[in-house]
Amino acid sequence: MAVTGSQPAPHDDRAPGSLPASPLGLHRVLEPSGVLPQAAWRLDARPAIWPNEVRVAVERLNLDAASFRQLHEAHDGNPDKLRAAVLEIIATRGKMQNPVTGSGGMLTGVVDQAGPDSPLGLAAGDRIATLVSLSLTPLVISDGLARWDGRSEQVPCEGHAILFGRSIAAMLPDDLPAELALAVMDVCGAPALTHRVVAATGGADGQPVVAIIGAAGKSGSLSAAAARKAGAGLVIGVVPHEAEAKILSAAVAADGEHGLADEIVIADARDPVGLSSAIASAGGPADVTVVCVDVPGCEGGAILSTAQGGTVIFFSMATSFTAAALGAEGVAADVTMLVGNGYVPGHAQLALDLIRTEPGVRGIFQRRLTEHPELRTCRPD
Amino acid sequence: MAVTGSQPAPHDDRAPGSLPASPLGLHRVLEPSGVLPQAAWRLDARPAIWPNEVRVAVERLNLDAASFRQLHEAHDGNPDKLRAAVLEIIATRGKMQNPVTGSGGMLTGVVDQAGPDSPLGLAAGDRIATLVSLSLTPLVISDGLARWDGRSEQVPCEGHAILFGRSIAAMLPDDLPAELALAVMDVCGAPALTHRVVAATGGADGQPVVAIIGAAGKSGSLSAAAARKAGAGLVIGVVPHEAEAKILSAAVAADGEHGLADEIVIADARDPVGLSSAIASAGGPADVTVVCVDVPGCEGGAILSTAQGGTVIFFSMATSFTAAALGAEGVAADVTMLVGNGYVPGHAQLALDLIRTEPGVRGIFQRRLTEHPELRTCRPD
Repeated sequence: MAVTGSQPAPHDDRAPGSLPASPLGLHRVLEPSGVLPQAAWRLDARPAIWPNEVRVAVERLNLDAASFRQLHEAHDGNPDKLRAAVLEIIATRGKMQNPVTGSGGMLTGVVDQAGPDSPLGLAAGDRIATLVSLSLTPLVISDGLARWDGRSEQVPCEGHAILFGRSIAAMLPDDLPAELALAVMDVCGAPALTHRVVAATGGADGQPVVAIIGAAGKSGSLSAAAARKAGAGLVIGVVPHEAEAKILSAAVAADGEHGLADEIVIADARDPVGLSSAIASAGGPADVTVVCVDVPGCEGGAILSTAQGGTVIFFSMATSFTAAALGAEGVAADVTMLVGNGYVPGHAQLALDLIRTEPGVRGIFQRRLTEHPELRTCRPD
Repeated sequence: MAVTGSQPAPHDDRAPGSLPASPLGLHRVLEPSGVLPQAAWRLDARPAIWPNEVRVAVERLNLDAASFRQLHEAHDGNPDKLRAAVLEIIATRGKMQNPVTGSGGMLTGVVDQAGPDSPLGLAAGDRIATLVSLSLTPLVISDGLARWDGRSEQVPCEGHAILFGRSIAAMLPDDLPAELALAVMDVCGAPALTHRVVAATGGADGQPVVAIIGAAGKSGSLSAAAARKAGAGLVIGVVPHEAEAKILSAAVAADGEHGLADEIVIADARDPVGLSSAIASAGGPADVTVVCVDVPGCEGGAILSTAQGGTVIFFSMATSFTAAALGAEGVAADVTMLVGNGYVPGHAQLALDLIRTEPGVRGIFQRRLTEHPELRTCRPD
């Protein structure tokens, strides 16, 4: 896909401002032409901005969990190989989009220059996190990732990134460490959509049973807290093994009465019969099942664990569309299956409020931020 | 993945009846063990049945459109190569599941033997269609596909297939040709889910704007009719080129007043900006967008064509989960995205009733059943 030397590099004769800049970033798409930046193979990541863009001096990338897991496994956790692989992706594609998983992550940084027509309301010096995926964000790394140890998805680095007119960014809060805020905002779509769906779902006495698969993880713990806040009558937390169960059982809800989960189930989410039986024993089937584990093959189990007429929300980027569609049909399951949209209005604020008010969730995040990936076999996000 | 000669073939020492038969068909899964039949690499397709199973003498397969398209393109439409490829898949996997697309299709046949504990209510001699995917149905072909010309997804053949306790099958209606009934039931999940979603959606005056991408196709034309029946205020039909537009404009709705679509838009569904602009000009954005074209890369366009707060239903098996999830986030689109579940209670009956009462839809089906795939560049299903 690389441009060969004998061809002129596309767009190189085009000065920023000479073409109208699309709020969607279409003017930054190099190939294939006409697609949205997320679907593009390669973006124009040059630093000069169009009038409706914002350039950010990058401080830290937060790689998407599925992407980091894939890279970590493909390179046996070798830090040098991981650094080289991430640099190669960014240099080739003009963005950090893992070619295998298709996913990206997000970043934090300081606004360097805001174009006069940018609608984002940002000014030079603002410390922000991007809430659009790295998979569509023009990005250049300038320090060779020298400060990244390759052992976690949080990547301290230097470089620049470009925000479009319709990108979303949030100011980093003053009262939370940047690393924590970034990790929270990275998964903030999950609690927001969980809250919306649970609030709209009936169930016995209008209090739905909610199963969170991967409840001791980041998106899972936030989603468990959001489900409770939205009126869940029973929150079942599913974890893969005893160590995760201990983490989850130590997490108390903000009300001091409940655990973050009411029932904790140890099950392999890739084993449909085992998972659904365990959830049934804990008070299921679920009216709402939320899939927050980034391992492939969880579709069938989530479907079988959900009551007829219920809803499955897939947040895992490892979800297979066909496995979900055909899996539900194959077991005659009348369940609504949602693609976990990372954007829900107010999502960052909801998640940050949860982390401020739910010590159990905050404890899980702090643990996740300090542990090493080698220890996290089959862990949720 | 094949079992080598030095190993005993799994299950070969197990007589039917010696193990309890799962209604989900778990007892027919050879590898990997413990997964549902749809997720399995290989099934046990031996003809002897367990007490809750049904064996069907197969008359015809209807390959899923995405699968047929992939096979057709991979083998340059060569009938001998296509026959060999399909036979190889079925012999290797014990089911017709395209390894590239993951999808299958369905079949018609005559019940050969119904186990005493089968809950399906079938008896020997019943002519039926299966409403669960071929991707999970144990299947053996015995005639080498000699009667298939390789030019259409409808494959006349001989062999046997197995239905589980929780499979779904429908009696073939007496008043419709079998080929037509099969084609209708193959896509009957789409109009059923479209009907449900449109009926539950508001919009101006409670009459939502519905865009059907691929409206001149089989699932698209049925979904357009279902949307109208469910109360759509405006049905926008999207087609890829003039020839399809003519087909759609010739299709009149049952009421004799409307066309099947109120507005017909010619656009490339893979071009997000072109598609969304065209739909906007025709009365959009849509409150409900239904994706019925089996080509990859339609996620962004469908999302951009949908109003904030609206719903996208993805029926195409070419849908990418990550492209949908990240695409919506990337343009800050607050849209509900549904995985098109092939099972909705009453789906076959709804679709058969539409084909009986909507001459425009029936005309489209009859045309699709007689045309050749070479002529169908970029056609909807």
